[in-house]
Amino acid sequence: MLSSPLLTNNPSLYVFLPIYYAVWCDAVLTPSEIKTIQQLVDKQEWLSEEEKTFLLSQLNPATPPAPDELKSWLEEIQKVADQASADKKHGLVDIGLQLAALHEAKKEINKEAQQSLREIESVLGVISSESAFIFNAAQRKTITDQQETKASFDVNTMAALLDGDQADILNKVKTILSDPAFEYIDTDNLKERREKVLEWCHLLAQQGFGAMAFPKEYGGGGSMANYFSIMEALSYHDLSLVIKFGVQFGLWGMSVYFLGTEKHHKKYIKDIGTLELPGCFAMTETGHGSNVKGILTTATYDHEDQTFVIHTPCEEARKEYIGNAALHGQAATVFAKLIINGIDYGVSAFVVPLRNKQGILHPGVTIKDCGRKMGLNGVDNGVIYFDNVRVPKDEMLDRFAGVDEDGKFTSPIASDNRRFFTMLGTLVGGRIGIPRSGNSASKSGLTIAIKYGDQRRQFGPEHAPEVPILNYRTHQRRLMPLLANVYALHFSLKYLTDRFINRSEEDMQEIEALAAGMKSFATWNTTHTLQECREACGGKGYLTENRIDDLKNDSDIYTTFEGDNTVLMQLVAKSRLTEFKQEFSNIDFFGILNYVGSQAKTSIKEMNPLTIRNTDEDHLLDPEFQLSAFRYRERDILTSAARRLKKHLDSGMDSFDAFNQTQYHLVNVGHAYIERIILEQFIAQVERTQDKACKAVLKKLCDLFALSQIEKNKGWYLEHDYMAGAKTKAIRKLINKLCWEIRQEAVPLVDAFKIPESCLSAPIIK
Amino acid sequence: MLSSPLLTNNPSLYVFLPIYYAVWCDAVLTPSEIKTIQQLVDKQEWLSEEEKTFLLSQLNPATPPAPDELKSWLEEIQKVADQASADKKHGLVDIGLQLAALHEAKKEINKEAQQSLREIESVLGVISSESAFIFNAAQRKTITDQQETKASFDVNTMAALLDGDQADILNKVKTILSDPAFEYIDTDNLKERREKVLEWCHLLAQQGFGAMAFPKEYGGGGSMANYFSIMEALSYHDLSLVIKFGVQFGLWGMSVYFLGTEKHHKKYIKDIGTLELPGCFAMTETGHGSNVKGILTTATYDHEDQTFVIHTPCEEARKEYIGNAALHGQAATVFAKLIINGIDYGVSAFVVPLRNKQGILHPGVTIKDCGRKMGLNGVDNGVIYFDNVRVPKDEMLDRFAGVDEDGKFTSPIASDNRRFFTMLGTLVGGRIGIPRSGNSASKSGLTIAIKYGDQRRQFGPEHAPEVPILNYRTHQRRLMPLLANVYALHFSLKYLTDRFINRSEEDMQEIEALAAGMKSFATWNTTHTLQECREACGGKGYLTENRIDDLKNDSDIYTTFEGDNTVLMQLVAKSRLTEFKQEFSNIDFFGILNYVGSQAKTSIKEMNPLTIRNTDEDHLLDPEFQLSAFRYRERDILTSAARRLKKHLDSGMDSFDAFNQTQYHLVNVGHAYIERIILEQFIAQVERTQDKACKAVLKKLCDLFALSQIEKNKGWYLEHDYMAGAKTKAIRKLINKLCWEIRQEAVPLVDAFKIPESCLSAPIIK
Repeated sequence: MLSSPLLTNNPSLYVFLPIYYAVWCDAVLTPSEIKTIQQLVDKQEWLSEEEKTFLLSQLNPATPPAPDELKSWLEEIQKVADQASADKKHGLVDIGLQLAALHEAKKEINKEAQQSLREIESVLGVISSESAFIFNAAQRKTITDQQETKASFDVNTMAALLDGDQADILNKVKTILSDPAFEYIDTDNLKERREKVLEWCHLLAQQGFGAMAFPKEYGGGGSMANYFSIMEALSYHDLSLVIKFGVQFGLWGMSVYFLGTEKHHKKYIKDIGTLELPGCFAMTETGHGSNVKGILTTATYDHEDQTFVIHTPCEEARKEYIGNAALHGQAATVFAKLIINGIDYGVSAFVVPLRNKQGILHPGVTIKDCGRKMGLNGVDNGVIYFDNVRVPKDEMLDRFAGVDEDGKFTSPIASDNRRFFTMLGTLVGGRIGIPRSGNSASKSGLTIAIKYGDQRRQFGPEHAPEVPILNYRTHQRRLMPLLANVYALHFSLKYLTDRFINRSEEDMQEIEALAAGMKSFATWNTTHTLQECREACGGKGYLTENRIDDLKNDSDIYTTFEGDNTVLMQLVAKSRLTEFKQEFSNIDFFGILNYVGSQAKTSIKEMNPLTIRNTDEDHLLDPEFQLSAFRYRERDILTSAARRLKKHLDSGMDSFDAFNQTQYHLVNVGHAYIERIILEQFIAQVERTQDKACKAVLKKLCDLFALSQIEKNKGWYLEHDYMAGAKTKAIRKLINKLCWEIRQEAVPLVDAFKIPESCLSAPIIK
Repeated sequence: MLSSPLLTNNPSLYVFLPIYYAVWCDAVLTPSEIKTIQQLVDKQEWLSEEEKTFLLSQLNPATPPAPDELKSWLEEIQKVADQASADKKHGLVDIGLQLAALHEAKKEINKEAQQSLREIESVLGVISSESAFIFNAAQRKTITDQQETKASFDVNTMAALLDGDQADILNKVKTILSDPAFEYIDTDNLKERREKVLEWCHLLAQQGFGAMAFPKEYGGGGSMANYFSIMEALSYHDLSLVIKFGVQFGLWGMSVYFLGTEKHHKKYIKDIGTLELPGCFAMTETGHGSNVKGILTTATYDHEDQTFVIHTPCEEARKEYIGNAALHGQAATVFAKLIINGIDYGVSAFVVPLRNKQGILHPGVTIKDCGRKMGLNGVDNGVIYFDNVRVPKDEMLDRFAGVDEDGKFTSPIASDNRRFFTMLGTLVGGRIGIPRSGNSASKSGLTIAIKYGDQRRQFGPEHAPEVPILNYRTHQRRLMPLLANVYALHFSLKYLTDRFINRSEEDMQEIEALAAGMKSFATWNTTHTLQECREACGGKGYLTENRIDDLKNDSDIYTTFEGDNTVLMQLVAKSRLTEFKQEFSNIDFFGILNYVGSQAKTSIKEMNPLTIRNTDEDHLLDPEFQLSAFRYRERDILTSAARRLKKHLDSGMDSFDAFNQTQYHLVNVGHAYIERIILEQFIAQVERTQDKACKAVLKKLCDLFALSQIEKNKGWYLEHDYMAGAKTKAIRKLINKLCWEIRQEAVPLVDAFKIPESCLSAPIIK
């Protein structure tokens, strides 16, 4: 085209060059579009017939320009592209006009002709307007490209704020984890991994970490708070280690401590704390996991020799998935139905020997290895069968129930049911340790994904460097709300821990619901977070060396063990229904539900139509608005679940069916309750933060948490006319804005977790 | 209590027994509630002072009844419980009155007294009304318990319908997979797994499966359709096998076939099809995955000896994650920038030797093993470095570009960009094979989880057998919509395959978008489905032996390879924007966007307020309503994304920024488009199904798919006033109902997949 004498004669024809370049470059231009363009060229009245014929020939799909010719067009166009860009003339026609001027076109292209040319440009459409940018030889400066990491706060101050009064123990654990002895081992071999994890547990026990929660009189550290912090910090390392550690010192140790009495403490606690006596927590059976009350293992009292006969009556009664059982456990707390004189007194716990120090199984005990699992392959889970194994009477953990000298059952708690739940209640600590461990895993995953996103460049404007993927809106949308979640969970798990440590008898019911709900919310969040992190790191995230593989697979079972999350959320709901009942029982015993129902309706009436539509940023970022929205939802879901239940029961439905009919709503009751608690705690944390810079960024994270949850539930809010569509749209927009702002602080925000480098160990962020 | 002479004197006091039993059994009754009950007892005017004192003493938390005493209360109550239950008297007071009557109470408890007693009962509240059921000795018959598997259709008819004209090849593959040679191996060892997978590939090649898609003249089967069906059926077995198979015959073979010309076909295709020549597809680099156009490997033409010099100029240019590279690949299709005389002609493809038959690396080639991955550990992925490796000129795959005798670049496609996308377009088959493989993995996971849910019993009414967990509403809610999804995807992936096989040149753009979108939707669905299946199987789901571990981890990378899903969804959106432009370009070139914008607004005005609120089941199950809802959303999101883009561009924003600002909406454009396609295809399938019973159950699955998607997007529908809250609530209810109904057919519905038993191989469902 460029070599044609027509162009030399009439340089005005250069005006077509950018359009023609775009036509031949456009990867998606169809034959019919080309035809339309041909028709438009044909209509240009200012062209001679010869010029038209020439220009049309240059659009023939059967005779495309040679690749080299197309390259020469680009070079030609680039002569004016920078100037056009500087003049903010991005249109193909605008650039074409400048090109014609450069070649000293004499024939003026008048307004009408220009308009006619722009018609051609418009056929190239929305997408092709991008092609105007490809002419710029000078580097394009885009907003997207310019976004980068910069901290508005001091990372160490934030770290101190996160650690609080637990900084010492957290740092101590991190220091030990950074020791070369804790280097990850690169092996497929199950046996090697398990032995390594046992070795690590011994090293930790030597530091006194294992006995941290036990009383000082039994060689312990006397600090439950420190014990939980150890779990949190260890979880930056290998999660098999955390679970092996937790089985030994938490489940095995704490069950002896909380369910046993002084004689057991004296006999066992010290050796458990030093790992001299590795043991197990044998509760779950093949046939009964969630419904532990239904376990079938029996402990039959023999009056003759004052022993209990521990027995597995059938396959379903095998103790399954028992950590520490396949290889190392020498004894176990075994949960079994206590039978005296043929009467079933419900679930009790017994210390039962499994194998001796040489690893020889105790007579009557059979153990099968559970084999390979999705994760936690450093933990030796096993299946245990008991064939009439006898243990002395003193091995019954008899804090809540016992057998007296006459062989009679005694207990301060009359009902088997209530006794069972009281026993379980003392073991609630596991539901604190696990979500804290899960949240550490989320922190590790996010640290890797965010740092990678900050470094990894992919795509970018033409002729400009590629852009860090964390600058892309969808990437921010994936990761920033998850970063807000781990911060939110950090503070609320701290709150849960404090409540548990400073508990009174009367608090227990609330704390149990809180722990069950937090455990579910946090561990589901971990699973979801690590899945997103894996995908956000692409192929690199799939390589085991980059850690997300293990983090995801090891923590995957967190949603199941220590109580299946869905079941736990129903427990939370039942507890909330009870709370709810109590709240009103002192006012009026009748019509409680009707009262609340009507009250909720009143609130709707009272809802200000201006508030429903209020899209002001100040309003949306007001903690009072956010909390009201959470609380309103929580209360409404609770009353509506209660009303549904009552309706079913009133209609004569079996209560079991009524609960099943309402199950979906009950699970939501649990979610709404926990979400509200988490937001309350995050808001309180922002308020009490002294450091201004930290406070400001925490406020943003808190807003992102609050608004993301509202967005997640926006269907509900709209259904209930609590918000108008304009408001939920404004929230979406504000979330995008918060993600964009927090992205800049994302790297310092994960740095504040102070995860030991040796633990992250992901080559992609080195 | 029972032994007290007061009861003998006044048997009317028996009326208290059920309430008292409930008080002592209730695990969550608080001290303040007990106090309230004491006050109420104190108010009973029909009691003597002595009786009151006695009754109050029995409520003292400090002196609970002995466990054995409580058991005797229960025995006493049970004497009348069955009768009470038969009389539909479930209240504690009702039962108490019958008990008093049984003991021939003389003192009448009048209406007023009864009312006063009921006050006590009401303190026990909603939850405790359940305790009335625990007295029934006779087995409780609940709706929940009675639900069970029963097929309304013939499983074989459904299977035939699913397989269609591919039944023969599908069955052939399944038969071969059932051969003992394909037994899973239980090993951690990477090397063993990889060798086993290679061995399996050889067995499949011997059956002619590998060459299935190649032309008959090169020893192939000449059927692309069969090739995809082979991928689908193999995916019931080991996914490493599927990927190794796909790398060899799909990526390596097809790249030579589609990008090469006759000389390459003659030289390579036969040996690739027999696996005589194992090879790789070396496209992705460390620095460029999604943005392949940016790869840095160079192929520099040497005029002297007419060779290409393949070179890795930097770490970022290493070919990474290349399947078959670490151990077995002897050659590779290598994508590199073609450089002639210092000019870059964009990406081309070359056949490059990697190692000889003895496994000795070709000079200049270095290969590193990628090591352990999250999954697919039977595939030997590697990193390849080229140090000035020379290949003869004929090894350039020259269908779309070549170098002529004079060393000049030639191509029928002028623009490097367009040429690149044309090349990629020919490889779209991978985006069909992968989602079909993923959907098979989903089918396997659901088969395991649904069968387990049907067999596994946990919790149940007191004194009744436990209930299959699939009878629980939340469990149905988790799994039934996923079952609907795999059916929906099955039919739409079939549609995609047919479109691809019968494609014309003009279809390609649409098919590419369709494949990109279906690949994303289907593989995200696989990841999500397998995660739910894992959790739905609890601890059993975590054991590797039960398959979900491998299914989940092997398929996890499906969302990344063959194009990152998020990136692909943006491609779909861009393609949709182009389509959209074309649709209107023949009407009016100006104001297209304004036109569409106003049209959308008009539709809103035209929306019938009755329709918005219509909650009739007939309406909600009407395919016309469902499709309109999907289409309305698709069109609205598309126009609104276009409007946003235009607004940004009009304001002078750089197009790169404009796309980034709109990215979140663009991804939604892709989703909405694909969801509509899937629904269309499912509805069409239901309509053309002849067998009445199959048609009926498919209609239910289709409804569940449609309504679940609407529910997922209900926030959007409510925001846009397309539906009122009453309607979205009705949809939720209808989904619950559909889940409840489909649950009964769930086992036959997964049986219809006809997954070979040897492939499922999960002990939990045996």
